[in-house]
Amino acid sequence: MNALLLVAHGSRREQSNEEVRQLAKKLSTRCGDDYPIIHAAFLELSDPLIPDGLQKCIDEGASKITVLPYFLNTGRHVAEDIPGIVEEFRQTTSIDISIARHLGASDKMLDFLVSVAS
Amino acid sequence: MNALLLVAHGSRREQSNEEVRQLAKKLSTRCGDDYPIIHAAFLELSDPLIPDGLQKCIDEGASKITVLPYFLNTGRHVAEDIPGIVEEFRQTTSIDISIARHLGASDKMLDFLVSVAS
Repeated sequence: MNALLLVAHGSRREQSNEEVRQLAKKLSTRCGDDYPIIHAAFLELSDPLIPDGLQKCIDEGASKITVLPYFLNTGRHVAEDIPGIVEEFRQTTSIDISIARHLGASDKMLDFLVSVAS
Repeated sequence: MNALLLVAHGSRREQSNEEVRQLAKKLSTRCGDDYPIIHAAFLELSDPLIPDGLQKCIDEGASKITVLPYFLNTGRHVAEDIPGIVEEFRQTTSIDISIARHLGASDKMLDFLVSVAS
């Protein structure tokens, strides 16, 4: 069973974290066929943190997890922090975990921006 | 003449800033009819800063500028910092400057996420 973990940075503003959780929920209603399990997780400052989010997916029966970094910029978080945390978690499980390109690197970003700007 | 100013946070990684500039350039080729002038600017850490970006648009003949915050989260930067800087700049010009909703608040974000996840 495929799971998608939407990973955001996490904010001191709870409203911001809640927006990400709501987005993951809405995504569930749209991508439920591809990903029967969809959750949000955070790099820091909010719950669940990434390892807890991954574990939640596994507890719900995930056999494959795709981590989708909800980040616009190619920075340290995307290049090092998230891969590092995922790699550490991989040592604890045989579940297949892959990391998708972060949002800002999507080749669909330009289309999205065009739709927002128009 | 309408101008669009894509405002990102700015990063210590020059690669990240350059990505935003390139995105603004690509946007020019797609939204040139709506916005004959499109530039990138940064809240901090990179050039041009927001006031310089706004001035650049005016120097190139903009009569109306839309600031599009390239941010995912509703945080202090989106809620306070960018509006504050724009408001200060407004005191120096009669040009119409508006701030669009930040990317993360777009009602098209869910569609974009679905397209990325699928």
